[in-house]
Amino acid sequence: MTLFNRVCIIGFGLIGSSLARIIKEKSLTNEIICGDINPNTCRKVIDLGIANEAYTDLSIAVANCDLIILSVPVGAMATVAEIISPSLAKGCIVTDTGSVKMAVIRDVMQFMPADVNFVPGHPIAGTEFSGPESGFTELFVDKWCILTPLMQTELKAIDKVSSLWDHCGAKVEIMDPEHHDKCLAITSHLPHLIAYTIVGTASDLERDTQAEIIKYSASGFRDFTRIAASDPVMWRDIFLNNKEAVLDVLQRFNEDLIALQKAIRDDDGDKLQDTFSKTRKIRKEIIDSGQARSQDSK
Amino acid sequence: MTLFNRVCIIGFGLIGSSLARIIKEKSLTNEIICGDINPNTCRKVIDLGIANEAYTDLSIAVANCDLIILSVPVGAMATVAEIISPSLAKGCIVTDTGSVKMAVIRDVMQFMPADVNFVPGHPIAGTEFSGPESGFTELFVDKWCILTPLMQTELKAIDKVSSLWDHCGAKVEIMDPEHHDKCLAITSHLPHLIAYTIVGTASDLERDTQAEIIKYSASGFRDFTRIAASDPVMWRDIFLNNKEAVLDVLQRFNEDLIALQKAIRDDDGDKLQDTFSKTRKIRKEIIDSGQARSQDSK
Repeated sequence: MTLFNRVCIIGFGLIGSSLARIIKEKSLTNEIICGDINPNTCRKVIDLGIANEAYTDLSIAVANCDLIILSVPVGAMATVAEIISPSLAKGCIVTDTGSVKMAVIRDVMQFMPADVNFVPGHPIAGTEFSGPESGFTELFVDKWCILTPLMQTELKAIDKVSSLWDHCGAKVEIMDPEHHDKCLAITSHLPHLIAYTIVGTASDLERDTQAEIIKYSASGFRDFTRIAASDPVMWRDIFLNNKEAVLDVLQRFNEDLIALQKAIRDDDGDKLQDTFSKTRKIRKEIIDSGQARSQDSK
Repeated sequence: MTLFNRVCIIGFGLIGSSLARIIKEKSLTNEIICGDINPNTCRKVIDLGIANEAYTDLSIAVANCDLIILSVPVGAMATVAEIISPSLAKGCIVTDTGSVKMAVIRDVMQFMPADVNFVPGHPIAGTEFSGPESGFTELFVDKWCILTPLMQTELKAIDKVSSLWDHCGAKVEIMDPEHHDKCLAITSHLPHLIAYTIVGTASDLERDTQAEIIKYSASGFRDFTRIAASDPVMWRDIFLNNKEAVLDVLQRFNEDLIALQKAIRDDDGDKLQDTFSKTRKIRKEIIDSGQARSQDSK
């Protein structure tokens, strides 16, 4: 049962190459086209057999496609949209997988012809690995995929993109783009910023004290190093493109951290225990909602 | 091959009950005694069959034991040491599993009779679960166990405790207690403080905005919620008892976070990408050293 005739995925990293693998495995289209400005990636994609054709010229890649998926770093969306715009087939659907939605809508929409339907999307899934080899068909299973359609987006375009994500095993939610950006600022962007920071701090400390610190990394720190191993360009772009929401939650985080810092300095054990007891309950809620397994840690 | 004749474990939480299970399974002693001031815990331990006898009176529990393992929250070490001190058998070994070493040595040593050997220890292992049901025999496999013996600790006592941890599958390292506390402040204590903070911040934001935030928790945040579900009393005591080292690394962390905050505010993409690229290398070092698996995230 094909959903599309000719699908072009632009950017064959973890997300793009996982989508290609799923679309191929489930025969959701007749042809999969790879558009990637890196010729090495194009070669790998053909070697891996996860696309029928591959082009470094993105305007060639999108020609005659009825679905175009933009899975490039958020900061590259405007350039890509500008390049492909004149070659988009009449009535085609364009969607994306960027982690920020307001900036992507701003960047992409300015180049979209009136007869093209843009369906902004964000699958909340990932690993710390990058590149076309890192993708796998189970990446989106039971994960959220948030769509943030615009007022003018046609319902049938939303339905088709939604159906694609259903086939990936994802749970689709429709959300306002501004709310999406605020929500992800605290649940994803800030945790990444913090993880990058703490791993950097530990590394500097190790260098300054000439002591083996990271060798004894306990479970908490190991989780942070995994998060801090995520793609640097992708994350640079996320912070630059969700600046206001990130700086806002960072402000709140700083206030809360200062309160705990003061509690430690003042030997205020009650304040510490009280805070730590509350957060334990939140983990339970997440496990109950099926977003994490109770044995994740072992 | 018994290492000991009669072992008393005080505090049957995750660590204590895991040790009891291992000691029993490997027949490292003739008798295992549970000392726990909570009568419900004593009952459960007997029901679970992981100790031969169980006492809420800790002075009775330690009588005639040749090894006593203190696995109570760090803040309870002084009280426990004072209670058991008069009942300790001549020449017995006392060890502990506390996450802080300087404060525990200070608290315990003041009550140790001259003929008792205290071997401070810290297995770097754990989950977010507590209580006697949560223990399991594989908890320490391939994990570090750091011993921080004192000048006066007899070598044969260190060897026996070291041998116990070998049987648990742990990798034993000898370290200076002050260095231990500084090292763990950055690799374990600060990550926990940060995780507790960020989960609290997210929870407050959810309440303030009446929006579902935590529902869409991405992988980064889910890891934080797991860490922030760790035992509140245990962690309260760690922060209060490793105050100086924690406040010191927190200061460094704050400086680094402010630098990244400024980079976001100033649209300094180079600074962000540069920082994020460095931390990615550190993850690779940890994977190469065998402390984490490359597929941990899937």
